[in-house]
Amino acid sequence: MIRIFEFDALKPEEILNRDIRAEADVEATVDAIIADVRARGDEALKEYALKFDHAKIDDLRVSQQEIDEAFAAMEPDFLKTLEMAADNIRAFHRQQVHKDFMLERGPGITLGQKYTPIEKAGVYVPGGTAAYPSTVLMDVIPAKVAGVSEIVMTTPAGKDGKVNPAILAAAVTAGIDKIFKTGGAQAVAALAYGTESIPAVDKIVGPGNIYVATAKRKVFGKVGIDMIAGPSEILVLADGKSNPAWVAADLLSQAEHDKLASPVLVTDSMELAKAVQAELEVQIPQLPRAAIARESVDTNGKIVVAADLDRAIDAANIIAPEHLEVCLDDPFAVLGRIKNAGSIFMGRNVPEALGDYFAGPNHTLPTSGTARFSSPLGVDDFVKKSSFIYYTRDALGKVQGRIADFAEHEGLHAHAKSVTIRFEEDN
Amino acid sequence: MIRIFEFDALKPEEILNRDIRAEADVEATVDAIIADVRARGDEALKEYALKFDHAKIDDLRVSQQEIDEAFAAMEPDFLKTLEMAADNIRAFHRQQVHKDFMLERGPGITLGQKYTPIEKAGVYVPGGTAAYPSTVLMDVIPAKVAGVSEIVMTTPAGKDGKVNPAILAAAVTAGIDKIFKTGGAQAVAALAYGTESIPAVDKIVGPGNIYVATAKRKVFGKVGIDMIAGPSEILVLADGKSNPAWVAADLLSQAEHDKLASPVLVTDSMELAKAVQAELEVQIPQLPRAAIARESVDTNGKIVVAADLDRAIDAANIIAPEHLEVCLDDPFAVLGRIKNAGSIFMGRNVPEALGDYFAGPNHTLPTSGTARFSSPLGVDDFVKKSSFIYYTRDALGKVQGRIADFAEHEGLHAHAKSVTIRFEEDN
Repeated sequence: MIRIFEFDALKPEEILNRDIRAEADVEATVDAIIADVRARGDEALKEYALKFDHAKIDDLRVSQQEIDEAFAAMEPDFLKTLEMAADNIRAFHRQQVHKDFMLERGPGITLGQKYTPIEKAGVYVPGGTAAYPSTVLMDVIPAKVAGVSEIVMTTPAGKDGKVNPAILAAAVTAGIDKIFKTGGAQAVAALAYGTESIPAVDKIVGPGNIYVATAKRKVFGKVGIDMIAGPSEILVLADGKSNPAWVAADLLSQAEHDKLASPVLVTDSMELAKAVQAELEVQIPQLPRAAIARESVDTNGKIVVAADLDRAIDAANIIAPEHLEVCLDDPFAVLGRIKNAGSIFMGRNVPEALGDYFAGPNHTLPTSGTARFSSPLGVDDFVKKSSFIYYTRDALGKVQGRIADFAEHEGLHAHAKSVTIRFEEDN
Repeated sequence: MIRIFEFDALKPEEILNRDIRAEADVEATVDAIIADVRARGDEALKEYALKFDHAKIDDLRVSQQEIDEAFAAMEPDFLKTLEMAADNIRAFHRQQVHKDFMLERGPGITLGQKYTPIEKAGVYVPGGTAAYPSTVLMDVIPAKVAGVSEIVMTTPAGKDGKVNPAILAAAVTAGIDKIFKTGGAQAVAALAYGTESIPAVDKIVGPGNIYVATAKRKVFGKVGIDMIAGPSEILVLADGKSNPAWVAADLLSQAEHDKLASPVLVTDSMELAKAVQAELEVQIPQLPRAAIARESVDTNGKIVVAADLDRAIDAANIIAPEHLEVCLDDPFAVLGRIKNAGSIFMGRNVPEALGDYFAGPNHTLPTSGTARFSSPLGVDDFVKKSSFIYYTRDALGKVQGRIADFAEHEGLHAHAKSVTIRFEEDN
């Protein structure tokens, strides 16, 4: 049964009982795989596919025929669902595009900043039961909106040597068709360093198991990476008027993911707390994934009862959840006070699942309290900024003494000289 | 003497001869320091100050009296230089502030994104010869512009137990006065976990030696960090009309930093290449830091001669330099073709030093080719985004089947249920 705590009796470390997991001997395995892929390229990828995925791969790239077969295998109505979701995701992410700026900072002085898309991006998609077409849309569409010119996807094949058709359909719906059958740390290595078939990219995004996450950490610096995601979390902030069955269902939508998933209710109502506790016991046994949900709820779940709504919001800000549902009559009245959350689900009619699949904002979100300092995946992850400075000779002349003064204070004479030499008679 | 290469004869690994340095046994030392600071707090910091900085520290926090003494010790004209630079930095970074948005995505549907400043930020400032007041301005001002409510600075004290007065003056000019006398990995640990005197922050920025960089990597996840900076680099892109003495001076302004610094000239003119090569030999012996500049130029410096200007721009994009000078008559004509560079210095009258100290754009920039996927430090590093979703009950009702369809395709029944339960009669 989920446990109930009083907020003001909790110590900080009891509120935040999340910790980053140790990597143990995964490191050495991953190091060896990366070195092997760098040395042997495609051949290594095919061997790992046989070893880890039990798949015999002749051609790493998914063929047009395989894509056509995947589309033929999908229900037309699900293809329509994919398209509607993709449209919503595209519309939201288009709002994230920033404009370049220029600033006239005085006579003969122009400063500016320009955005450039990353040239090549790699999207990693897990296989098996964690093969989520929604994640394909969420990872690929922001890159397309950003203007990335080459997007490459990798995902492991099944034992039949084929890729999950829903994954292929989602990839094509999102706008890409360069898809390679490789998974795990070897896929990350291939994307970072390139092989005969797979181009080296500038940035790698997408979720994965501990081997994938460790490989991403290892290649970081050579390429960019998105976040390293921890277990999924939901925090439902609900008042006493909330429907306990809906709240319980929302908590369980997170709990069914993973026994490490963290479903948390924060409320100012002990009555709601007890009702949700009881309702969870009713709903858990009805779920196909009841065993996973049970462990998540009992071990990593929590109901926190706060003295009032203000304190409940404090608790949410301290926990800094990946997903925050605000189950209140007027959620916009408290939006400004929510400081730390990845995505915020406003009001009683917005279950997290609406955002997971359909509404448009990204579902790749900061976990483990990192919403204190990081953001949902988005267009910003697929562009970079360059600043620029233009001064005329006259403008530089007016401030040359200031720059030289600063440089000399830092003991950097050549810095000063690079300015003053431009005004010496001999040069 | 600097070596001259022809671009089309270079292999990719010869163009990019940069690599991330191994950390060897630094890891274990840093792990021990972090554990010690977590266990013993201020006491550990004071012991490390004595051990590493040979400084006896009674009170870790810099007092108002020490700040007053620092200001009294500075030349008024340098204080004026600091203020002018700070004004320019503030003006540029204010342009980086983004607006929240809301999108009406249909009847009863509002999507949006809001920015929130990070609550607490820590700025690390190195001591000794690498104590740069310019870096204090560049790290603190974007945090202030972003609206960070608590900014804490740490920097090691000298043997006399005092902090470099120029550092204190720059901190106060940038708008902060919470400054603590601690450096190295122990300062990073203190900022990440907090001690009796030093508050735990949400994000740590600022350059440092290998111990500081390693500590930042270690605490990443618990807190955010900015980039891990490699050796500094300049790429001067210059045509045959360029003044070889100016180009050589600009290359040397980078070379004097560090023997690992990388000064590169890319030109379409073999004549300029040879003239700059000769001019470097004239200027190096005149520098106070001649030995450092000599090693940087000869070991990590390079002149690349390209067949024409287009190929020269290709070379710049492949190298993706931290600093890019465009020494051409009309630099704006090529700005759009520059894809990968941290900061761009436009035209013949814009030595890098102008940007290092004074113009306004940040001087904390992506090194080692990471400009392919990362950006200068700025306001974005001190804010985070939260997305939000609002649907009315009617709006949710219209798409409930689509969401359930998607969830069932991913085998996540509880996700589907969290939507459909809201439309069941019993609930």
